[in-house]
Amino acid sequence: MTKTKDKWERALGQSKISKSEFKEFEPELRRELVELQQELRSSNVSVMVVFAGVDGAGKHEMVNTLNAWMDPRGIVTHAYSSKDAAAKERPDFWKYWRDLPSVGQVGLFLSAWYSNPLLRRVQRATSEKVFQKQLEDIRAFERSLADNGVLLVKVWMHLDKKAQLKRLEELSSQPETEWQIKPGAWENWGLYDRFIKASDKIIQSSEKAGAPWLLVNGKHRYSRQIVVARALRDAMRERLANPPVSEGLDEKAWDEKMKGARGTLQKMDLSKSLEKDVYKEKLKALQAKLYQLQHHAKLAGLSTVLVFEGQDAAGKGGAIRRLVQGLDAQEYQVIPIAAPTKEELAHHYLWRFWRHLPRRGRVTIFDRSWYGRVLVERVEGFAQNCEWQRAFQEINEFEQQLVDNKYLVIKFWIQIDKKMQLSRFKERENTPYKKWKITDEDWRNRKKWDAYDVAVDDMISLTDHKHAPWVLVEGNDKSWSRIKVLETICEHLEKELKRIKS
Amino acid sequence: MTKTKDKWERALGQSKISKSEFKEFEPELRRELVELQQELRSSNVSVMVVFAGVDGAGKHEMVNTLNAWMDPRGIVTHAYSSKDAAAKERPDFWKYWRDLPSVGQVGLFLSAWYSNPLLRRVQRATSEKVFQKQLEDIRAFERSLADNGVLLVKVWMHLDKKAQLKRLEELSSQPETEWQIKPGAWENWGLYDRFIKASDKIIQSSEKAGAPWLLVNGKHRYSRQIVVARALRDAMRERLANPPVSEGLDEKAWDEKMKGARGTLQKMDLSKSLEKDVYKEKLKALQAKLYQLQHHAKLAGLSTVLVFEGQDAAGKGGAIRRLVQGLDAQEYQVIPIAAPTKEELAHHYLWRFWRHLPRRGRVTIFDRSWYGRVLVERVEGFAQNCEWQRAFQEINEFEQQLVDNKYLVIKFWIQIDKKMQLSRFKERENTPYKKWKITDEDWRNRKKWDAYDVAVDDMISLTDHKHAPWVLVEGNDKSWSRIKVLETICEHLEKELKRIKS
Repeated sequence: MTKTKDKWERALGQSKISKSEFKEFEPELRRELVELQQELRSSNVSVMVVFAGVDGAGKHEMVNTLNAWMDPRGIVTHAYSSKDAAAKERPDFWKYWRDLPSVGQVGLFLSAWYSNPLLRRVQRATSEKVFQKQLEDIRAFERSLADNGVLLVKVWMHLDKKAQLKRLEELSSQPETEWQIKPGAWENWGLYDRFIKASDKIIQSSEKAGAPWLLVNGKHRYSRQIVVARALRDAMRERLANPPVSEGLDEKAWDEKMKGARGTLQKMDLSKSLEKDVYKEKLKALQAKLYQLQHHAKLAGLSTVLVFEGQDAAGKGGAIRRLVQGLDAQEYQVIPIAAPTKEELAHHYLWRFWRHLPRRGRVTIFDRSWYGRVLVERVEGFAQNCEWQRAFQEINEFEQQLVDNKYLVIKFWIQIDKKMQLSRFKERENTPYKKWKITDEDWRNRKKWDAYDVAVDDMISLTDHKHAPWVLVEGNDKSWSRIKVLETICEHLEKELKRIKS
Repeated sequence: MTKTKDKWERALGQSKISKSEFKEFEPELRRELVELQQELRSSNVSVMVVFAGVDGAGKHEMVNTLNAWMDPRGIVTHAYSSKDAAAKERPDFWKYWRDLPSVGQVGLFLSAWYSNPLLRRVQRATSEKVFQKQLEDIRAFERSLADNGVLLVKVWMHLDKKAQLKRLEELSSQPETEWQIKPGAWENWGLYDRFIKASDKIIQSSEKAGAPWLLVNGKHRYSRQIVVARALRDAMRERLANPPVSEGLDEKAWDEKMKGARGTLQKMDLSKSLEKDVYKEKLKALQAKLYQLQHHAKLAGLSTVLVFEGQDAAGKGGAIRRLVQGLDAQEYQVIPIAAPTKEELAHHYLWRFWRHLPRRGRVTIFDRSWYGRVLVERVEGFAQNCEWQRAFQEINEFEQQLVDNKYLVIKFWIQIDKKMQLSRFKERENTPYKKWKITDEDWRNRKKWDAYDVAVDDMISLTDHKHAPWVLVEGNDKSWSRIKVLETICEHLEKELKRIKS
């Protein structure tokens, strides 16, 4: 508590900058910021500046100033209202993921992820427990950004109680400025002490997580502008000069850590199969059942995310096609995941998956997914050790968010054995219209079978959770695997719908 | 009428393909489709297949079949429901623009732009006049796509009245298939004759526009699949082998056409100016007024699109900044338009602007815009004659759609003279923090001053409309131009809000 209090006082005590000093500092600062933007453009860093703090402390004005000072092609501003209909149909953080600046860009964020948790806590609309959970989610979000190339600059613009009152009185005294007072501003001023108490918690929570706020006294226009612009300059300069180094475990140490948890795949009984006529009958019945369940899910606002992973030729596509035959075309989207595009590479690796999350009550089916990070990217060395190793936690947090926001998450791993893969590869090669499905890459991947086995084992042991389970599907017999997929989805939907109703 | 009737009968008479014939045709067709996809990938063409027709004629099944047969990385399916909250806050065609496949891709569209106009007409929810207007909008949409590299394949899947009844009866006879009957299907069957009558009009309207439908008899599964897949194959093959040639007028012929309409810019009185203290006073008052008006616009669901164009150093950025100081940060977005990215180049040139249309009640400010097509792209030769020449109509249609959907559209051309530009260029060069604003390109553009003058004159004379006016702003004095911009926006907002209320 004391430490934060010190910070408030230091911020409030920040020395006043006169108009003439401002005029002296401004040109150089602008030049530096624009130069840093140029440097940023050829880096692999993006910058997110989030503004929070007391109303009237000059947040919007600061955003305008930075927009005026910097090269507009490299800066984008986002301000959030609760009216965004697309966002309302997705998890809370969806809109921030949607708006992540790409590498080389600066994003300015107003009334962003701190805004609602803070206001709702101040208004006692949330309990302390919920508030703490929200702060935890924010920490995870910010950590994942910072770990993946985002420079996060957090600016808290402050006014003490008297100064805020004075500001409100000043604004309301003239018709030309009265409009700048937001609805609810006076009520909020009445809650000033609560506001500071909750703010303290936010600031402490960030300190602890090593993502501290810059506290700025918003009382004087010239001072606050110079202080914020300098802080942004320093942060960018530091980040571009000294990229953070993170190593991760080497193979041996990782194996040591994981060895007890391996061997899941070997335990699967791949001889499981279904008679053709049983298959046909079950397929029809399950598709009909799925249709009904999805109809109820839509009404209940239950969204579904299905992930399909498996070796090449394991039968992911075929399983997905049998599944969507039981869905209304308006209710689902199949997203095939291939190598990332240039635009996707310029963002956090989870960005392209966030973009495709279904709206309320709908279904998105990922044909391969974010698990590429810990499969192909790990095995092929596209991701560094530290990157794929921390991805397990990032993925767990991502899926937890989905579940927290009324998404049903099921992940299928379809497993075949080496012999079956060979025979399917050969069949593809010998069937003119299937030949395109088999490439040199598939043969190369096949050579790395054992490395993939290990990666899959690790993936399952580190990301299998009751709320977002891995379902291991025996895939040597396609009839068996397709029915198992459909049955599993129906079971989970049924259970989840029952749970929602009760 | 006769011609369409012939077509129905021909479609219904389409010869039946047996299971064994299907098995014979299928492998070769699949191979051909996948090969064409590969060819498509290195072309500048994208393919949009739109499915419409009678319920039960196998549209969804056809989409599944094409997904199964083709390379999933190059094919994407979109099916629309009226529940899409983001789409509801934008013009009707927004969602189709959002989902345009990029060059090299195939998009399959279910229940897309024909669906609502047809159903609503059948249900007598729209008048014949509104229906005809909708068909006109569709023709404009499809023409603009086709002219800009989209191969449009329109598949009408048909069943005669008896066949549809039989299909519905078959499906409803078993619990495993009953679910496939959509809500309202029986009611729709009761309106079958009306449905055909309205469909006839759609088909005739397309014939006239040279974008005919493929009529397919949906009665037999094997036949309809082969017929549709072959038609897609043939269309892709033809389009890839014979790219359409379109020439446009040469410079002389264009000048001849336009000469009477030129000279607008010369008539402007660039000596207009404002005293500094009058400026400051007006600025404050206008920002306050704008804030109030935008608040009412939000409540009224009136969206605003502002376009800023002008020579380099005309003062667009400065005018925009004064303007946004009078807006709530949550209510607006400034979109600076630079050279298109690779992703943007892989789409219709209007795609990147559609993406940024504001939601209901919000404001988007374009700092440069779609008018780049008829300015920089024309002058620099980035667009061919035919491309920029037809862009005038495309742009007019685009803006008309905005206006039809409750958007206020105002376009500002800020004009300075050559001497003023030179002095601002020099000031930028001599001010360290402004130096980045001036590049070799600006000097190159300056050399083409006269060519730009002509292009601007043409643009204004061909795209100035009462509902989406060009406002010519004298820009030599920045105080004058900033106030004129703010005043104009306030006036238009005020008028439009009054009109909405009454």
